[in-house]
Amino acid sequence: VALIMFLQLSTYASRPGVAQETELHLMPVPQRVARDKGEFRIDNTFTVHMTGYPDPRLPAAAARFLHRLQKITGIPLAMSPAQQASEQTALEIRCNGAGEQIQSPRADESYTLEVSIRGARLTAPSPLGILRGLETFLQLVDLDGRSFFVPSVKIEDRPRFPWRGLLIDVSRHFEPVEVILRNLDAMAAMKMNVLHWHLSDDQGFRVESRIFPKLHKLGSEGQYYTQEEVREIVGYARDRGIRVVPEFDMPGHTTSWLVAYPELASAPGPYQIERSWGVFDPCMDPTRKKTYSFLDSFIGEMAGLFPDEYFHIGGDEVSGKQWNASPAIRSFKRRRHLKDNRDLQAYFNQRLLKILAKHGKKMIGWDEILHPDLPKSITVQSWRRQDSVADSARRGYAGILSYGYYLDHMRPAVFHYEMDPLGKQAASLTEGEQTRILGGEACMWGEFVNPDNIESRIWPRTAAIAERLWSPPGLRDVHDMYRRLEYANRELDSLGLMHRVKYLEMLQRMSGEGSVAPLKTLADLLNPTGLGVRLRSRKYSSLTPLNRMVDTVLPESDTARMFGDLVDNALADQPMPAGVFQEIRRLLICWQENENLVKPMTEQSFLLSEIGPLAKAVFELSVKGLEALDYIGLRQKPPETWSTEAALLLQESEKPQAEMLIAIVPSIKKLIDAANNIK
Amino acid sequence: VALIMFLQLSTYASRPGVAQETELHLMPVPQRVARDKGEFRIDNTFTVHMTGYPDPRLPAAAARFLHRLQKITGIPLAMSPAQQASEQTALEIRCNGAGEQIQSPRADESYTLEVSIRGARLTAPSPLGILRGLETFLQLVDLDGRSFFVPSVKIEDRPRFPWRGLLIDVSRHFEPVEVILRNLDAMAAMKMNVLHWHLSDDQGFRVESRIFPKLHKLGSEGQYYTQEEVREIVGYARDRGIRVVPEFDMPGHTTSWLVAYPELASAPGPYQIERSWGVFDPCMDPTRKKTYSFLDSFIGEMAGLFPDEYFHIGGDEVSGKQWNASPAIRSFKRRRHLKDNRDLQAYFNQRLLKILAKHGKKMIGWDEILHPDLPKSITVQSWRRQDSVADSARRGYAGILSYGYYLDHMRPAVFHYEMDPLGKQAASLTEGEQTRILGGEACMWGEFVNPDNIESRIWPRTAAIAERLWSPPGLRDVHDMYRRLEYANRELDSLGLMHRVKYLEMLQRMSGEGSVAPLKTLADLLNPTGLGVRLRSRKYSSLTPLNRMVDTVLPESDTARMFGDLVDNALADQPMPAGVFQEIRRLLICWQENENLVKPMTEQSFLLSEIGPLAKAVFELSVKGLEALDYIGLRQKPPETWSTEAALLLQESEKPQAEMLIAIVPSIKKLIDAANNIK
Repeated sequence: VALIMFLQLSTYASRPGVAQETELHLMPVPQRVARDKGEFRIDNTFTVHMTGYPDPRLPAAAARFLHRLQKITGIPLAMSPAQQASEQTALEIRCNGAGEQIQSPRADESYTLEVSIRGARLTAPSPLGILRGLETFLQLVDLDGRSFFVPSVKIEDRPRFPWRGLLIDVSRHFEPVEVILRNLDAMAAMKMNVLHWHLSDDQGFRVESRIFPKLHKLGSEGQYYTQEEVREIVGYARDRGIRVVPEFDMPGHTTSWLVAYPELASAPGPYQIERSWGVFDPCMDPTRKKTYSFLDSFIGEMAGLFPDEYFHIGGDEVSGKQWNASPAIRSFKRRRHLKDNRDLQAYFNQRLLKILAKHGKKMIGWDEILHPDLPKSITVQSWRRQDSVADSARRGYAGILSYGYYLDHMRPAVFHYEMDPLGKQAASLTEGEQTRILGGEACMWGEFVNPDNIESRIWPRTAAIAERLWSPPGLRDVHDMYRRLEYANRELDSLGLMHRVKYLEMLQRMSGEGSVAPLKTLADLLNPTGLGVRLRSRKYSSLTPLNRMVDTVLPESDTARMFGDLVDNALADQPMPAGVFQEIRRLLICWQENENLVKPMTEQSFLLSEIGPLAKAVFELSVKGLEALDYIGLRQKPPETWSTEAALLLQESEKPQAEMLIAIVPSIKKLIDAANNIK
Repeated sequence: VALIMFLQLSTYASRPGVAQETELHLMPVPQRVARDKGEFRIDNTFTVHMTGYPDPRLPAAAARFLHRLQKITGIPLAMSPAQQASEQTALEIRCNGAGEQIQSPRADESYTLEVSIRGARLTAPSPLGILRGLETFLQLVDLDGRSFFVPSVKIEDRPRFPWRGLLIDVSRHFEPVEVILRNLDAMAAMKMNVLHWHLSDDQGFRVESRIFPKLHKLGSEGQYYTQEEVREIVGYARDRGIRVVPEFDMPGHTTSWLVAYPELASAPGPYQIERSWGVFDPCMDPTRKKTYSFLDSFIGEMAGLFPDEYFHIGGDEVSGKQWNASPAIRSFKRRRHLKDNRDLQAYFNQRLLKILAKHGKKMIGWDEILHPDLPKSITVQSWRRQDSVADSARRGYAGILSYGYYLDHMRPAVFHYEMDPLGKQAASLTEGEQTRILGGEACMWGEFVNPDNIESRIWPRTAAIAERLWSPPGLRDVHDMYRRLEYANRELDSLGLMHRVKYLEMLQRMSGEGSVAPLKTLADLLNPTGLGVRLRSRKYSSLTPLNRMVDTVLPESDTARMFGDLVDNALADQPMPAGVFQEIRRLLICWQENENLVKPMTEQSFLLSEIGPLAKAVFELSVKGLEALDYIGLRQKPPETWSTEAALLLQESEKPQAEMLIAIVPSIKKLIDAANNIK
C-alpha cells in the first residue's frame, strides 16, 4: 500500500494566505470592473429574486446557480428563487427583454452586475446576459477570516466577439453524451457560446438519420447519438446560452457515408469505415443529381434537429484523386468550364448553398470553401493562416479563426492566448471589416482523444481562448492569466469536469500494483507531442489503445512553468537569492531521486517500458542542473568537458522520446548557459 | 498559484514493483481460490459469449462489464457480447437457471470462475451468480511487463451470509438520486445485496405518495424522490443483484408525517419538520382505527413501489411521552391489559403485521420490535448489542446485525472487520440457530453527512464489512485486508465514487486562495469524532453547513496507520533499522514544518480558524517525536522534565479538538514510551 502526501513547494512557489487584499480571479475578465469598499456576506439566508421578462431558462438557471453556490460554500440554501422580493433578497435579477427565439451571433449577451454590502443586482437586456452574469457572480465568491462573501463591485460586461466556440470531433473517436454535457458546463462557465459538433468524417457517422438509417447503422459501429440524445444536448446547450452548430463534412472526409451509400461516391465501392488517420480519397460525386437529392433530404432532416441558423459543411481537404480518375467527372468539368477541382468544389458548394437556403440555413465551412463563385453570405472558418480571417473580411466574407486554436497541437495556453482573431493586420482593418470577424473556435480533433483524456486536452487551455474571445484586446498579462487559470481549473473540478481526475486514474492504471506518486512526479514534467509528430512516430488507428504515457501527460506542465519562473528569478538577481536557490536545488534533488522509484515500475508494467529513457534523461538533466547551480554558486567556470557533455545532453533531451517532450529542458538550459557564461 | 507534488514515502512505506509474484487483490475474498500457472492475456480481440438461461439482466451486465474492462485497460473493445462462441471467445458465460422472479435472501448467488491461458469460463446456477462472478473477474485484471492479463485460477464462490446490506438515511439530510446510484455501483462491486433505504424520519419524508400527497409536499421541503425516481433506483439495484428494502420508521421518528397528517399523532398538533438531532416525542397514535386505515392505504401504495418481500417498519426509540400524557391512550392500555408502552408498541406492531401480510410483505424492524407477542416470522435488526442477533436466533427469530457497523461512529475499518454477526457465542449456536442469522448491514445515518461527504463516510470502510459478510469466517488478516482495501479504493474511483475527489474539493474550499497542499498534509492526520461527541459539542441542525474540517477529514487516516507500522517496525528491531529511522524522521520533520504553512491559512479562512490548535498540537507532537528518536538513537534516558512535558502533551492531544482527533497520537506515545524506557 502506498502512502501519498501532497508536499508544498514552500514559500517561493506559492504564498498561501499572504495576499493582503483579495485579488479577483474572473475568467474571462469583464470589459469593465470597478471595485468598491466592503463586500456582501453570504449565509444561509441567501435568496434570489427575479423580475422582468420571464424566460423559462431563467428559473432553471437560478436553480443551477443556487446549487453551485451551495456546492462552493457548503452552506445549505433554499433551492428555488423567492416568490417575493424582500429585505432579505441577496441577488435581484432583472431581465429586460425576451432576446432571440433562436440564439444567433447577433444576440446581446451584455449584463451589469452590481454588488454592495446590502446585496447584488444583476440586470441584462436579454436572458443570455443573465446567464453570463450568474457565472461572473459565482467566480466572485471568496472567503476570508469571517465568512464567504462577494466583494463590492460594479461590472459592466459584454463579449468582444459574438462567436466563441469549441469544436469537438466525435468521428475519429466517439464521445458519449455525458462527455459532451460536461464540456457544455465548462464552456458556459467560461462564457463560450458555440459548440461546433464535428459529427461525420471518414472514421464515423455519428447521428441517427431516420430517412437514411444506413448512415448511422453502417457508418458508426453502434457509436452514434440518437435523435433524442441530440435534442437533449441541443436543449442542454440552449439552457446555457450555447448554440450548437453541426458539421457534416463534405464532399471529402465522407468515407463513413459511402460505406452505407456507395452510390454517392465518385468511384465505385464498396467502402469500409476508415480506421487510420489522414486525408483519404473517397469523395462525393458532385456531378450527379442523385447526390443533391440525397443531400436535400438529409439536410432537411438535420435542419429539423439542429435549430441553429448555421450549418457547417466542412469542405476541407478534398484530395481530388477520385475526381481526376473519373472520365465522367472529367467530362462534366469540361462541359461546365470548370478549370480545376477547386472550381468543381465551388460548383458543389453553390448547389449545396441552395439546398441550405431552402432549409433556412446559412453556410459555414473551412478555408477551402472560399472561392469567387460563392456569395458573400457564406462564413469561412480559417484553419491554415492567422491572417486569412482578416483577408477574407477585406474581401467581404464573415469569418472565424481556428488557426492557432488547434488543441491537438499540444501548445501551451499562452500560445493560444496570444493568438488574436484580428491577426497581425488588426490596425489596418476598417470597422466594417472588423465586424466581419465574428470570433474563433478552439478545435479538439479526435485522433488522439477518447473519453479518458479528451477533457485534459480541452481544459483548462480552452479557458485562455475563451478569454481572448471575450475580454478586451489589450489584456495581455500572461502571468495573471495563469494565476486565474488555476481558479478556472478549480471551478471546472467543482463542475465535475474530469481533466484532473482522469489524469491520476490513467497514471494509476499504468502503475498497476505500485503507488502512483513517483510516476506522477515524472509525468508532471512531460508533455505529449502534437498530432504531426505522433502520426510520423508509428502506425495509429482507431483500434490503438490510448492508454500510454503520451496519452496521459498534460499538454502543459504547470510544474515546469513554475520551475521556469524560479530559474528566471534566480538568474535575474545577482547574487542569486538563497531561498530561490534552495528551492531549485530541492526540486532537482527530488527529480534526481525519483528515477530510483520509477525504474522498477518500468520493468513491471508494459505500459511504462518506453518511459525508462525519459526517466533517465530527467535524472541526468537534474544532475547537470545541480552541477550548474554549484558552478554558479561558487562563481567558478565549468571545465570544457562538462560544457560539451551538457550541450550533448540538452541536444538529446530536446528530441521527442516515446512521443513526449521533457518540459524542464529550457530551464535546465538556462542554468547550464549561466554556468558556461561565468567569466 | 500553487505547485503541488505527490511525494513518495520511499521504500519502507511502499515498494512499487518489488513484489515478485502477483498477489491477488480480491475483495471480498472468495470461498475457494486455486491458483494455477500462467495467465490469460487481454487484448482488443477480447469477446464475451453467453449461453444458458437468457435473463434480460445478463446482456446489460455483460455490456457494463465490457465497458469497465475497457476503462480499466484503456483497450478499445467491442461493446456487446458476441452472437456466436468461437475460438476467439475470451469469456464464456453460462447461466444455468432463471433464479427468482423477485430476489430474496434465499437467492443462490454462487458461481464458478475458471481462468486458463486459453480463456475464462463463468458459470452459475442463476443470474445473480453471474453478476458476482463478473465483479470477481474485473478484480483479477492486472498488468505486467507484457500486457494486461487475468491470472489462471479456479474460483468457487458463494456468500457466507445471504443479507449483506447498507442502510442510507436520506431523512436527516437528503441525498440526490445520483448519490444513491453511485453507492449501488459500489455495493455491487463489493458483492453487497441489500440497500436499506431509510426514507422517513422526524426530519423529512422522502417519497412521493400519490394517495397522501401531503406527506411529501409538507414533509420534505421539496427534497423527495418521485415515484419514477424510486422505480429507477429499484430497477438499477435489481440490475446489479441488489434488493431495496424501504424503511418507514414508525410509530416514533414520525414528526415529518405528522406535519402533514397531525390526526395520526398521539397528541394534538400542529407539528413542524424537526431540524435538530435526537429522539423526539411525536408518535403515532396506536389506539385509533384511523391510524391503521391510513397505514393500510399507505403501505398498499408503497408495496406496489417496492417489490421486495421485506418492509422495514423501524420501531426504534419510541419515547413514550405522548402515550403517557394522553388519557385516551392510558385508558386504552388499561382496557387491553397492556402493562407498559412496550406492550402497546407490540400491539401496534401486531396490527401492522396484519397490514403487511395483506400486502404480501414480511416485517423487519429494529431491536425494539422483539416482543413475546410477536410471531417468529418477523426479522430483527440488532443495533444495541453484538450478541442480540445470536440471542434472538436462539429464541427463534431471524436477525441481522448492525451493532458495530455504524459508520457514523467513525471507527476504523478494522473495528468493523472484526465484528462478526455470529457474535461471541458463535460456537454455542446450533446449525439451525446459525441459519437464522441472515447477515448484517452497515448503517450510514444522516445527521452529519450530505452529498459532499457521504461517500467518504461509507467508503472504503463498508468494503471491509462487505468482506466480513461474504468471505470465510476464518479470514482475519487485518494487514492483508488493508492492502486489498487500497485496491477497493481504486476500483471505487474508477466506478466514479466521489469519496476521494470530494475530500480534496472540500479542502480546497477551505483553503480559498491558497494551495491545498499544507492543509491536506494536516488533514491526512486527523479523524472526525463520532456522532456522540459531536452532538455534545455544539448545537447542530439540518441548517448547519457541513463544510468544516470535521466534516471533511476521513474516518480513518491511512497516513497515521502507515506511520504506526513504521514505528512498530522500528521499535520491534534492536538496533532500530536505519532506513525506517530516517523515514520516521522525515515524516516528523515534514509535519513539524507544515505548521508554518497552515498557520497563515487559519487567519485567512474562517473555516480554518478552529484548526490552529490542531496544527500546533501536530507540531508539538512531531517535535516530541523527533526528540524521542534522538534519545532512542543515543540510548540516552530523557530527563524527567522532558518525560513530564511529553506526558502532558499526550494527555492534551488525546482530547477532541474542534470535534477531531489526531490520529498519530498513539504512535508518538510509543516513541515517547520507548525513550522513557531506556535504562
